[in-house]
Amino acid sequence: MKKVAIIMGSDSDLPVVRKTAGILRQFGVPFETHVYSAHRTPEEAKSFALSARENGFGVLIAAAGMAAHLAGALAAATTLPVIGIPCSSGLPGGLDALLSTVQMPSGIPVATVAVDGGTNAGILAVQILAVTDPALAVQLSEKRARDAAAVLKKDAAAAEHILES
Amino acid sequence: MKKVAIIMGSDSDLPVVRKTAGILRQFGVPFETHVYSAHRTPEEAKSFALSARENGFGVLIAAAGMAAHLAGALAAATTLPVIGIPCSSGLPGGLDALLSTVQMPSGIPVATVAVDGGTNAGILAVQILAVTDPALAVQLSEKRARDAAAVLKKDAAAAEHILES
Amino acid sequence: MKKVAIIMGSDSDLPVVRKTAGILRQFGVPFETHVYSAHRTPEEAKSFALSARENGFGVLIAAAGMAAHLAGALAAATTLPVIGIPCSSGLPGGLDALLSTVQMPSGIPVATVAVDGGTNAGILAVQILAVTDPALAVQLSEKRARDAAAVLKKDAAAAEHILES
Amino acid sequence: MKKVAIIMGSDSDLPVVRKTAGILRQFGVPFETHVYSAHRTPEEAKSFALSARENGFGVLIAAAGMAAHLAGALAAATTLPVIGIPCSSGLPGGLDALLSTVQMPSGIPVATVAVDGGTNAGILAVQILAVTDPALAVQLSEKRARDAAAVLKKDAAAAEHILES
Amino acid sequence: MKKVAIIMGSDSDLPVVRKTAGILRQFGVPFETHVYSAHRTPEEAKSFALSARENGFGVLIAAAGMAAHLAGALAAATTLPVIGIPCSSGLPGGLDALLSTVQMPSGIPVATVAVDGGTNAGILAVQILAVTDPALAVQLSEKRARDAAAVLKKDAAAAEHILES
Amino acid sequence: MKKVAIIMGSDSDLPVVRKTAGILRQFGVPFETHVYSAHRTPEEAKSFALSARENGFGVLIAAAGMAAHLAGALAAATTLPVIGIPCSSGLPGGLDALLSTVQMPSGIPVATVAVDGGTNAGILAVQILAVTDPALAVQLSEKRARDAAAVLKKDAAAAEHILES
Amino acid sequence: MKKVAIIMGSDSDLPVVRKTAGILRQFGVPFETHVYSAHRTPEEAKSFALSARENGFGVLIAAAGMAAHLAGALAAATTLPVIGIPCSSGLPGGLDALLSTVQMPSGIPVATVAVDGGTNAGILAVQILAVTDPALAVQLSEKRARDAAAVLKKDAAAAEHILES
Amino acid sequence: MKKVAIIMGSDSDLPVVRKTAGILRQFGVPFETHVYSAHRTPEEAKSFALSARENGFGVLIAAAGMAAHLAGALAAATTLPVIGIPCSSGLPGGLDALLSTVQMPSGIPVATVAVDGGTNAGILAVQILAVTDPALAVQLSEKRARDAAAVLKKDAAAAEHILES
Repeated sequence: MKKVAIIMGSDSDLPVVRKTAGILRQFGVPFETHVYSAHRTPEEAKSFALSARENGFGVLIAAAGMAAHLAGALAAATTLPVIGIPCSSGLPGGLDALLSTVQMPSGIPVATVAVDGGTNAGILAVQILAVTDPALAVQLSEKRARDAAAVLKKDAAAAEHILES
Repeated sequence: MKKVAIIMGSDSDLPVVRKTAGILRQFGVPFETHVYSAHRTPEEAKSFALSARENGFGVLIAAAGMAAHLAGALAAATTLPVIGIPCSSGLPGGLDALLSTVQMPSGIPVATVAVDGGTNAGILAVQILAVTDPALAVQLSEKRARDAAAVLKKDAAAAEHILES
Repeated sequence: MKKVAIIMGSDSDLPVVRKTAGILRQFGVPFETHVYSAHRTPEEAKSFALSARENGFGVLIAAAGMAAHLAGALAAATTLPVIGIPCSSGLPGGLDALLSTVQMPSGIPVATVAVDGGTNAGILAVQILAVTDPALAVQLSEKRARDAAAVLKKDAAAAEHILES
Repeated sequence: MKKVAIIMGSDSDLPVVRKTAGILRQFGVPFETHVYSAHRTPEEAKSFALSARENGFGVLIAAAGMAAHLAGALAAATTLPVIGIPCSSGLPGGLDALLSTVQMPSGIPVATVAVDGGTNAGILAVQILAVTDPALAVQLSEKRARDAAAVLKKDAAAAEHILES
Repeated sequence: MKKVAIIMGSDSDLPVVRKTAGILRQFGVPFETHVYSAHRTPEEAKSFALSARENGFGVLIAAAGMAAHLAGALAAATTLPVIGIPCSSGLPGGLDALLSTVQMPSGIPVATVAVDGGTNAGILAVQILAVTDPALAVQLSEKRARDAAAVLKKDAAAAEHILES
Repeated sequence: MKKVAIIMGSDSDLPVVRKTAGILRQFGVPFETHVYSAHRTPEEAKSFALSARENGFGVLIAAAGMAAHLAGALAAATTLPVIGIPCSSGLPGGLDALLSTVQMPSGIPVATVAVDGGTNAGILAVQILAVTDPALAVQLSEKRARDAAAVLKKDAAAAEHILES
Repeated sequence: MKKVAIIMGSDSDLPVVRKTAGILRQFGVPFETHVYSAHRTPEEAKSFALSARENGFGVLIAAAGMAAHLAGALAAATTLPVIGIPCSSGLPGGLDALLSTVQMPSGIPVATVAVDGGTNAGILAVQILAVTDPALAVQLSEKRARDAAAVLKKDAAAAEHILES
Repeated sequence: MKKVAIIMGSDSDLPVVRKTAGILRQFGVPFETHVYSAHRTPEEAKSFALSARENGFGVLIAAAGMAAHLAGALAAATTLPVIGIPCSSGLPGGLDALLSTVQMPSGIPVATVAVDGGTNAGILAVQILAVTDPALAVQLSEKRARDAAAVLKKDAAAAEHILES
């Protein structure tokens, strides 16, 4: 199976990417974790991306805040799909990171998920690998069913919870 | 090869998705085009997504404006990767569509590209299919090289263009 | 009397909808409470809305945050009025939920109240039922009078409170 | 049948409320149209709202731009449901009107639709009247079916339209 | 001397208007304080404004949050200058209150100060009264001098404070 | 009667301040017009403000766009009331000018009107002078009555205008 | 004298940087112009920046729109001062480019000027070179004097221009 | 070596500028610290800037919040480069200060860094002085290398940290 790379711009993004790693472990998808800064260690970030495909990676995930260039910098150095997680470490709500991540110019897309959306970045990576991996696709359906069941369980309890103050 | 589906919420989104279709044709990726509204024809949208994997699709692309629910509605009915294109048909700059597309709750990601980013949606779909298709990956690298050459050609002409008024 | 349905996208919205439930109880309007997710349990949400009118409901109230599709998804499956409460669980101030709820395309309106406006959602539901229910209309006028009296009581104390530090 | 009132803050809002009037005519709902300013003719606005219920109105619709106080001012003088249409005559996208209309304090809700959403304001008014009017509810379902058919017709033509440049 | 009226939309605005009252007391300007809601006690708000000039008031100050209509509602009922203080009780930073207060239509201005700007509302009121009151103008100049001296004192200490951690 | 000064940061603001001048002429209020830049001619701006009170001015009006410092710079050099008009010459909607004008620190208020609100700046200046000038106050009431009559005339024509397409 | 480099992310930014070039020619500062994309030709951008100091450059100016990474990418590869011009080619007002340019993480600053601020980028570059070049500093003062004179000339004509319609 | 001036609009900005001072000390760049308010002590601010070049300063750094005019006011009185630090003491995220600092009109640039970006303001000042000071340039390169090494050290620990909860 192709590997996934989780790359943070700073170790302050750890709480967000731990959710990503949790998803990948849950699905049995192999992954590596790195801290590369688009601005402080641009060469390491680029080298990693340039050789990612031949090193067995299928998807790169980049988490960064503020003027979040990391996902775009990786995307410029590989044709693998790059998932961007805007982190809310700068402006409240992460608007700076969201726009810096999603508004990529034509030619170099970044697949952007919600601000601080570590869980969904992991699921999207699994979905990409599952396009040609039926076993992973089955696992995804099973997780969907579990998630739905959890909502329905909460639904069953809603009538009484609404009466609590 | 897996097919790609291009789904518009309204035919007013045609100028955006024509760029997506142009990319897919350029790469020889088979695709279907549909107009399904998350709110006016939700059943058709859902049915399409539910059977998309078994019908040979690998990626769904959804373009919608305003309270752009289409990508999320499709994503809720399939575990295939869904790419969302926020369209600027509502608020200036498409801020409503961008937030409605990217801020998905945990469990159901949408791979969001730039506002009106039809070209990048097509490239991202090709990148996803190319994870396990080396020939497509080569095509992607060739396009990157052509894009770079076009920039360098403009660079060569920059010194004289800057003198024009 | 027609019933009101209070539907949350997640039980994290309970603090908001408890205010809604409090209003409905205060007016003696029968209601049901559910947790349905537009993305994790879309089928349950749709089924509920499709049969809501025949099941005796007059108004649906949907509370959701982030890319808040719940109100729109319900509105697509019923012609009953749907009230949307944008919840501030995503971006600060709930701007994502507000735009995702209010910017509905032509044909499928959502009656949107203020961010986290659980109380007003309840009052609006009562107002809708009171269009043809004179007794409820009297109750609404009485509540208005009580609210006004409470403001006037505060007005009477304002002069001294402004001197406190 | 209860009547609907369409009230503009300025006759510059006519293009928006003409869509509202078109919907009401299409459904055979009687309506009156007025130009009342919350600030230049507040007394007329208030008097109209105060006596609206006894004059046979069931819903008030208010369209206004900038610091759009009209819907709130009407809502303060009646317990009928008031629908607010924020108009984009001030800031681009009507953000000022949207926030001035939707962010009402507890006790006085305004049922807000999309910026410049004249059509949906009309439909929402019909939906409110249809809560206790089965014939109107049937008409609403028929319109939904026509709207869906129009989308499906566009879907059938999508494949060829996407090839045009 | 003309009096100043400080009017809050809610007693939750007390912390903001206490600063206003403090300024007025410091300048010896007589004032009254009220809690009037534009929506819950519109009649009291209007009556107060209608008779404010004849009752000896020279300036009205209105503090309100969310869809802050209070300043505009008062301004519609008097030709005295009305100062608006947007309060940050709704959206973060009070953007809703700021736009609802400042974006008034032609004919009915509101002199808007900064979000939660209780102190400046008081000073602006004094400045308005001082246009024709030389003694107040002297007091304003003296306060300016004191404020400047306080800054210069901080300047003198800056070099050492910057070394603290 | 005290004079009013209309000061533009740039002659590109002329369309906005012409409306201000029109109001002042209509009320017979004497005024002077200047172009002073807070950044290109700060000394002239400051000198004008420093001597404005002794030169017979009662109110200063400043119109500026982008990082609109003009109103604040004048306010720092006089204790007369300064009215700020944010102009939309920079960011769409003039958000930069609005925030640069209204968000003044404690001690130096600017009475801010709507973006491009030249008319209201003029009316607010007249209202300030009218605090101690009963004849001007009568004129203001007369203008209010004329404005209201104009709205009522439009109201009378509304029913037929709404039928036009 | 050190040279200045003007680097565009796309030749669509030419109208903005022509103003920059005009300033540099006016001051007799030698400059080179390039089109380098942070994403399509990242290697050329980096190589240029890496050797810029030894090649005689003193300041780099980068103009880019959307997720504007160009200034940051150059800044990561040189310790020369890098001036960033956010271009409004993406979202209205260039908010995406502004935040992507200015919100740089600690360690790698970008000296950001106004959106589309080509003129000021040129002046800032001259100011930086003039820190140790008294002749350039004299030229800057002379330009300031000319700019001030132009404003004063407009001031002299203001009184008559305001009367035109 | 030229000196750097660090100027705060208020001593509440001390936490931001302490980071600036720390950088300057680390590089051995002489600096002075002042508290000057653009509005409360405009004369002191202007005088300082007017004589800054002849007093041996090479760069001015201004930190201010809300309607942050300080950097612009200094820039209007000197042709030295002025670095602006927008401080988040007003609106959340400092959007008011950012726009007030960066959106300067043509002729008077302010080199703006990130909101609360005290560290980068210091580094940018050093970069400006290093244009003609090779020893400082070497120090900057050494700091870059240390920063990169720190990131790489975190990278080495990333794999284990991601497993912690």
